[in-house]
Amino acid sequence: MKNTLTDVSAGLGERFCSVRQQTETLCEPLTPEDMMVQSCPEASPAKWHLAHTTWFFETFLLSEFLPGYRPFHPDFYWLFNSYYNTVSEQPVKKLRASFSRPSLELILGYRRHVDAAMQKWIEEGVTPEAARRIELGLHHEQQHQELLAYDIKNAFWSNPLHPAYREGSLQSPSSASAMQWIGYEGGLVEIGHGGDGFCFDNEQPLHKVYLKPFELASRLVTCGEYLDFMRDGGYERAELWLSDGWDTVKAQGWRAPLYWFEAEGEWRVFTLRGAVALSAILATPVCHVSHYEADAFARWAGTRLPAEAEWEIAASGLPVEGNLLESEILHPTAAKTGEGLQQIFGDVWEWTASAYLGYPGYAALPGALGEYNGKFMSNQMVLRGGSAVTPESHIRSTYRNFFPPASRWQLCGVRLANRQE
Amino acid sequence: MKNTLTDVSAGLGERFCSVRQQTETLCEPLTPEDMMVQSCPEASPAKWHLAHTTWFFETFLLSEFLPGYRPFHPDFYWLFNSYYNTVSEQPVKKLRASFSRPSLELILGYRRHVDAAMQKWIEEGVTPEAARRIELGLHHEQQHQELLAYDIKNAFWSNPLHPAYREGSLQSPSSASAMQWIGYEGGLVEIGHGGDGFCFDNEQPLHKVYLKPFELASRLVTCGEYLDFMRDGGYERAELWLSDGWDTVKAQGWRAPLYWFEAEGEWRVFTLRGAVALSAILATPVCHVSHYEADAFARWAGTRLPAEAEWEIAASGLPVEGNLLESEILHPTAAKTGEGLQQIFGDVWEWTASAYLGYPGYAALPGALGEYNGKFMSNQMVLRGGSAVTPESHIRSTYRNFFPPASRWQLCGVRLANRQE
Amino acid sequence: MKNTLTDVSAGLGERFCSVRQQTETLCEPLTPEDMMVQSCPEASPAKWHLAHTTWFFETFLLSEFLPGYRPFHPDFYWLFNSYYNTVSEQPVKKLRASFSRPSLELILGYRRHVDAAMQKWIEEGVTPEAARRIELGLHHEQQHQELLAYDIKNAFWSNPLHPAYREGSLQSPSSASAMQWIGYEGGLVEIGHGGDGFCFDNEQPLHKVYLKPFELASRLVTCGEYLDFMRDGGYERAELWLSDGWDTVKAQGWRAPLYWFEAEGEWRVFTLRGAVALSAILATPVCHVSHYEADAFARWAGTRLPAEAEWEIAASGLPVEGNLLESEILHPTAAKTGEGLQQIFGDVWEWTASAYLGYPGYAALPGALGEYNGKFMSNQMVLRGGSAVTPESHIRSTYRNFFPPASRWQLCGVRLANRQE
Amino acid sequence: MKNTLTDVSAGLGERFCSVRQQTETLCEPLTPEDMMVQSCPEASPAKWHLAHTTWFFETFLLSEFLPGYRPFHPDFYWLFNSYYNTVSEQPVKKLRASFSRPSLELILGYRRHVDAAMQKWIEEGVTPEAARRIELGLHHEQQHQELLAYDIKNAFWSNPLHPAYREGSLQSPSSASAMQWIGYEGGLVEIGHGGDGFCFDNEQPLHKVYLKPFELASRLVTCGEYLDFMRDGGYERAELWLSDGWDTVKAQGWRAPLYWFEAEGEWRVFTLRGAVALSAILATPVCHVSHYEADAFARWAGTRLPAEAEWEIAASGLPVEGNLLESEILHPTAAKTGEGLQQIFGDVWEWTASAYLGYPGYAALPGALGEYNGKFMSNQMVLRGGSAVTPESHIRSTYRNFFPPASRWQLCGVRLANRQE
Repeated sequence: MKNTLTDVSAGLGERFCSVRQQTETLCEPLTPEDMMVQSCPEASPAKWHLAHTTWFFETFLLSEFLPGYRPFHPDFYWLFNSYYNTVSEQPVKKLRASFSRPSLELILGYRRHVDAAMQKWIEEGVTPEAARRIELGLHHEQQHQELLAYDIKNAFWSNPLHPAYREGSLQSPSSASAMQWIGYEGGLVEIGHGGDGFCFDNEQPLHKVYLKPFELASRLVTCGEYLDFMRDGGYERAELWLSDGWDTVKAQGWRAPLYWFEAEGEWRVFTLRGAVALSAILATPVCHVSHYEADAFARWAGTRLPAEAEWEIAASGLPVEGNLLESEILHPTAAKTGEGLQQIFGDVWEWTASAYLGYPGYAALPGALGEYNGKFMSNQMVLRGGSAVTPESHIRSTYRNFFPPASRWQLCGVRLANRQE
Repeated sequence: MKNTLTDVSAGLGERFCSVRQQTETLCEPLTPEDMMVQSCPEASPAKWHLAHTTWFFETFLLSEFLPGYRPFHPDFYWLFNSYYNTVSEQPVKKLRASFSRPSLELILGYRRHVDAAMQKWIEEGVTPEAARRIELGLHHEQQHQELLAYDIKNAFWSNPLHPAYREGSLQSPSSASAMQWIGYEGGLVEIGHGGDGFCFDNEQPLHKVYLKPFELASRLVTCGEYLDFMRDGGYERAELWLSDGWDTVKAQGWRAPLYWFEAEGEWRVFTLRGAVALSAILATPVCHVSHYEADAFARWAGTRLPAEAEWEIAASGLPVEGNLLESEILHPTAAKTGEGLQQIFGDVWEWTASAYLGYPGYAALPGALGEYNGKFMSNQMVLRGGSAVTPESHIRSTYRNFFPPASRWQLCGVRLANRQE
Repeated sequence: MKNTLTDVSAGLGERFCSVRQQTETLCEPLTPEDMMVQSCPEASPAKWHLAHTTWFFETFLLSEFLPGYRPFHPDFYWLFNSYYNTVSEQPVKKLRASFSRPSLELILGYRRHVDAAMQKWIEEGVTPEAARRIELGLHHEQQHQELLAYDIKNAFWSNPLHPAYREGSLQSPSSASAMQWIGYEGGLVEIGHGGDGFCFDNEQPLHKVYLKPFELASRLVTCGEYLDFMRDGGYERAELWLSDGWDTVKAQGWRAPLYWFEAEGEWRVFTLRGAVALSAILATPVCHVSHYEADAFARWAGTRLPAEAEWEIAASGLPVEGNLLESEILHPTAAKTGEGLQQIFGDVWEWTASAYLGYPGYAALPGALGEYNGKFMSNQMVLRGGSAVTPESHIRSTYRNFFPPASRWQLCGVRLANRQE
Repeated sequence: MKNTLTDVSAGLGERFCSVRQQTETLCEPLTPEDMMVQSCPEASPAKWHLAHTTWFFETFLLSEFLPGYRPFHPDFYWLFNSYYNTVSEQPVKKLRASFSRPSLELILGYRRHVDAAMQKWIEEGVTPEAARRIELGLHHEQQHQELLAYDIKNAFWSNPLHPAYREGSLQSPSSASAMQWIGYEGGLVEIGHGGDGFCFDNEQPLHKVYLKPFELASRLVTCGEYLDFMRDGGYERAELWLSDGWDTVKAQGWRAPLYWFEAEGEWRVFTLRGAVALSAILATPVCHVSHYEADAFARWAGTRLPAEAEWEIAASGLPVEGNLLESEILHPTAAKTGEGLQQIFGDVWEWTASAYLGYPGYAALPGALGEYNGKFMSNQMVLRGGSAVTPESHIRSTYRNFFPPASRWQLCGVRLANRQE
C-alpha cells in the first residue's frame, strides 16, 4: 500500500514542480513594479497571484494534513485569502494594490518554503485524499496562471505607454478558411464528468440531457467577420441585443471588442506582444468580447450560441490539442484548413447560451473548498474549451468555465450554432 | 367566415371590457396624487400604467390594423412607450414621475377613446391574427395590473405615514399545516405550451427534457419558518449564500424580507391593508424575498429550489384556482389542510433554480412585439404559479415569469424541493 | 403698551395675509398632480412648499408662543420639517415625492387652520419678539415662493411635453443698451445691516471693510454676449475655468446655460412661459448659469466678478425697484437705456466672487432657528440683488443669498467688475 | 552683469542640489514596490512624485530656456504632466498606479539627466527670470516632498500589515502646557507678500484689510482635548457641525480623526513610525482632522477658527522655526512651555475660517504656470503655518496652503481664536 502511494506521489511530485515553475516562468518578463499593478476591479497584481496560489497549498494541504507544520508568516493565512469566508476574513480585493509589503522577495521565499515542504511530503508519500487535493491545488494554480496573463495584459493596456509583455510578432494568413456546419443528431445523451481523472465539482454528476439535432460551426468567428458586424451597425442596432447588453453598450460606450482602438485612421489591437494592425490579423478569432457581444453577433448572423451540452457532446472524444499556453503564442490564431471541428481546445473560451448553474444533483465539496465553485452559480454564463493561455493539462471537454455576461478582459470568443426550427 | 370571426369577437369584446375595467377598479382607492408616485427605479406611477396599457392597444392594434384610425394625442406614441426600441425612442424611465401633464383626466379620456375604437372594431369582427394580438394586449394589461399593485404598495411604504391601500384585516390560522414531500418519477417528459390557447412566445416550443425522480414540498414556506431561519443567523452566515447574494445582503443591509420592520420590540409587516404584527400571520407564506434569500433559506433547510421543469410537471393538469386577484385578499394566505400539492396557483410567485433562457428552438415574435420577452433572457430567474395579485385568467402551468435575483418588490416566495443523491 | 403692540400687529396682520396669499396665487396654474413633481435633488414638490411654510408658523410661533395651541395633525411637526435637526428627525428629502398623502386638500386645510390661529393671535396683539419671528416666517415663506417658481420650472422642463406654467410671450428689444463702467472710490467702508428693519442674521453685524477703487458694469451680461462666449469656444477652453468648474463642465456635459436647447438648428430657451427662440431674447440677461460659468465668462471678457462688499456699496441707497415678482414677467428683461447702475434689484441673482462666510463677529440666532443660515457657510458663493421671481418686500441691498457654485436651477446671472491693477 | 548672474547662480546651484537630494532622501526607506502604491484618489505613487518634479524642470526650464535641449524621453512631457492643460493632455490621475513602466531605475536616470543639465546651466549663469522660475520649481518640489510623506503614510495605512515608514518611537510629555489667549489690536493692517524674496502668486498683492481686535490661542489643540470633544458626543451632535460637515460625518462614518483606530479596547494612532497608543501622545497636537472637524471642535469649545488675516498678522515677524521636516520627527510634538505664540510654524497646518480666494487685484502668472494656483480658488479653505513634514526653507508667514474642507490625509490641525462680541 505504501508503495502505491509513493508511486502516485512520484508522478505528482514532478507535476507539482512543473506547474509551480510555470507560474514563475510567466512572471519572468515582469519587474517587481509590474507585479504591483491592479488595473481593474476584476484583476489582481501578479505578486498577489504568486502568493495566493501558495496560500492555497499552505492552508488546505500543509496546515491541515501535516501535524507540526509551521506557517511561513503569521499573517499570510488571512492576508492572501481570496474569498473563502469559512477560512478567515479577507482584505477587500482592491487593497491588493497596496501590498507593497510583503516584498516580492519575501513572496518568492514563501513559495520556496511551501514548495520545499510540499515536495518533501510528496516524496514521503501522501494519502489518496491528499493527492486529490494537491491535484485541486495545481488546477487552482493553473487557473491563476491564466488570470495572471489576463491581468498583466490589462495592466500594460492601462499604462499609457502600452508596453509589450513579450517580444515577437503575431503571424496570420490573409484569409480564414471557409466556415462549415457540422451536424449532430442529439437525442438523450449524457454530459458531465464520469471517469476517474480529476475534475471540479461543478462538472458532476454525469447526467442525462435531451438534445434536438443541432449543427455547430467548424471554426471560431474571425476578427474580419466581427468587423463586418461592426460596419453593419452592430453596436448601434438595439434589436440585435439583449436588454442588459444594450444598456451595457450605452453605459460603457462600447463600439468594438476590448483592446481594439483607432489610431491614425485604422483599427489596431493591443496584445501581449504589443499593438498590431487589425488588418494583419483579420483571419484570427475575435477575442475579448462579452457574452452580450457574442450573442448580438450570433443574432446578426441569423444564428445562435450553442448550449453547453451541445458543445460538450461535439467535443467529447476529441484530442486535447490546439493553441494552448504551451504554444507560447499567447493569442488566438487562424483556423487550419481541414475537415471537422477546428479550434475546439485553446484559442478562445467559447461563450455558450447556458447559464452557469449546478447540474441536477450537484453537491459542492464539503468545508471551505465548497466555496470554490458553487457559490458563483448566479448571473454567470458557461464558457467552454480553454484559450491560448490555458495550460494543456488543465482543460478537458467537460470543463465548465464561467464569467458574468459583461466580462471582456479574458480571451473569450464566439462559435456559432445553427438556428433550429 | 364572417360569422366565425364575429363569434370570436363576441367573447373577446366581453373579455376586453372586463380586463380594461379591472385596471380602473384597482385604481379606485387612489387619488390623482397617489397615481403620480414612483418610489423606486423598478416602479412606475399608477397613472403611467393606465396610459401605457392603452398605448399598447393604440400602437399595436388600432394604428396598425385600422386604416384611418386617428391617434388620441400626437405625442402619446412615444411618451407612453416603455421599452420598444423598434417603435420609437422613449423617455427615461425615472422621468415618468414628472408626467403631471397629461392629467389623470386626460389619461382616462385616452382610455375611453381607445376603448371605444376597440369595442367598435371587435363588434364589427376582427381577423384571427388581430384577435390573437388583442389577447396579447389583454395579458399585457393583466401583467401591469400586478405591477400596479406592487408599485402602489411600495409607494405607500415609502410614504412616512404608511397609508393602507385597502381597509380590512388579514386572517390567518395560528399554525400552518404540516409540510409533506410529494414524489414525482421524472424521466423524459415534455414541457412548454403546445395547445391552442393563448401563451407567450417564451413558453414555446413544447420540448422534451429529462428529469431525475424528485420531490416537492406540499406547501409554501411560511413566515414562521422564515423567522426560524433569521433567528438561526440566516442573514449573518456567508456559507448559506450565493456569492452575489452575500454581497447584496451586505451592500443593502438586508436582515429580513422587504416590508418587515421592527417597531416597539416586535416584527411588523407592511401590506396593502397597512401594517400587521408578524406574530398574527406566521402561518402565511413568506413573501417579498429575493431569489438570493429563497436560495439561502433552501440551503439552510438542507433542501433546494425546484427546477422550472419539475414545477411544471407537478403543476400540469391541476386546476387553476387559489388565492388570486379575484379573492381580493391581496396577500398570501395560509395553506389549507389537505392532501397533495397546495398553493400551486396564487399566493406568491415561486422562485425556481432555473435561469430565464429561451427554450430550445425559441423564436421571438416578429417585429416590435419580439421585444416583449426575448431580450430579457439574461441575468434573470424563472418564477412560477402567480400570486395573490395575479388575475385568474392570466395564469397557467406553463407560464414563465422572470425577475433579477435581487428583486424583492413583487410577491415572491419559496417552495422547496428535496435534495437529490 | 398694549396699544403699541396692537398697532404693530395691525400692519403685521395685513402683511401676513398678503404673503400667505401670494404662495397660493403662485399655485393657481398648477394641478394637484403638478404639485407632486420633484424633478431634481435640489427641488421640492409645490405641495411640500405649501406645507413646510405652514409648518414654520406652527412650529416656531403657535406651538411655542400660544399656550394650549392644538397642532393640526400629530405627525406634521416631523413630516414637514426640512432640516432643523434640533426640532426633530426629518424624512429624507427625496421622499417628498412620495407624499401623495396628506392630500393637497388636507394641506390647504392645514394652511387655513394655521392662518386662522395666526390671524386671531396677531389681532389680539403679539409681543415684539413674536412679531420679529413672524416677520422671519414671512421672509421664509417668500424664499419658498422663489424656490417654488424654480422647482415648477424644472418640473415642467423635465416633463417631455415641456408645458408652460403661464401663457403669454416674453418681450425684448432687439439689442441691448451699451454697457458702461461705473466707478467707485472704495476705502474703509461699512457693510452689513445696521438699521432697525428686518434682516437675516447673516447680514450682521455691520462691519468695516477696506476696498480699493473699483468699477462695476452698468448692466447685466446678456444672452447675446453669452452666445459670443460660447461661439468663441467658451465651453471647450480649460484655461478659462476654475478647476472644479472644468471638471463639472466635462462631467455634466455642459455646453450652454441650463434650459437652453437646440431644436431644428437654432437655440431655444425654456421659460415659465414655455420655450422661446434665443434669437428673440438676445438683449435679455443670461440666466441659469452657475458660478463656474459666470466666472469663466468674466475671465474670457478680461474682467472679473465683483466682491460682495463692492456690490453692496454700489447698491446702497438705491431704491428697491426693478423686474421683481410683482411685475409678473417671471423672467429677466433687457436693461433700460439710461445713466448709472441698471438692473441692481430683480432680473437675476448676481454671482459675486465672495464665498458665503460669517461676517466678523457673526452669531447665529439662538436655538433651532440658528440652523437657518449659519450651518450653510461652507462651499457656497454669495449672490446679490434678487431675481424676477423675488418679492419686492423681500429684497434689500444687504441681502446675502448663497448657492453652491455648480447650481444652475435658480435665476442666476452675471454682472462684471473691471480688473484691478 | 554676467558676474551678478553667476553670483545668483552659485547659491542657486547649491539650493537646487539640496532640494533635489531631499526628495530622494525621503524615498530611501522605500522599495520600488512601495513607490508604486496609490492608495486613495488624492494620492500619487512616490515614483510619480520623483518623475513629476523632474518634469517640471524639464518642461518649464530646460525645454523653454535652453535652445537645443534634448528631452530625456519623447513621452515624458505628457506622461508626467499633472494638471497643466495648457501644456498637454494628461493621463487620468488614477492611472498613475499603472505606471510600472517606466521603471524606478529609468525615473532615477531621468532625474540625473535633468539634474546634470540644470546644474551645468546654473553654473554657466541664468537670467533673473530663469532664476525665479527655478526657485518656483524648487518650491514645487518641496510641496511634493510633503505630499510624498502624506501619500506614503496613507499607502502604509492601507496595507493591512500597517508597516512603519521609519523606526523609532515618538516622545511626548504626559500633559500639555496651559493654553492662553494672546490679544491683538487689529485695525487697518496689511497682509500679503510685499518683499523681494520668493512667494507664490496667490500671496500677492500686498493689500489692506480691516480687522477687529482679536485673540489667538497660544498653542494648538491637543489629542487629549480632541478626545474630550469626542467623549462629549462631538460626532453625534448635529448642532455642532456645518451642514456639509454633518453630511460628511454620516456618509463617511467618521467618529475620530483619520488614522485613529480602536484595538483591544483602546484608541491607537497610526503614524509614519507605526501605530502608537493615543494615551502616549495626548499632549501632542491633534492632526488629520478636516476643516469640518476643526470647525465643529471650535464651536463645541465656544470659540472659532481664526481668519487667515488674523493668523498672518500674528505670525508676521516671528522667526521661521519649529517642528519642521528637518527635525526628522515627522509628526507634531507637544508645545513647549513658554510665553507667547507657540507652534506657529511646523507641527500641523492650521485650518482657518477663510475660503481660498484671490486677494484683491490677484493676477495669476502668465501662461501654463498660471494654472499653478489660481484655478483652485473654489471650494477650498486656507491653511497656514506648515507641518512636521514641511521643509523649513519652504514656509513663511504669508504662505497660503489650501485644501477642500473634507480633506484629512494631510497633517492638518486646529488653533482656536476667541469669539468676538
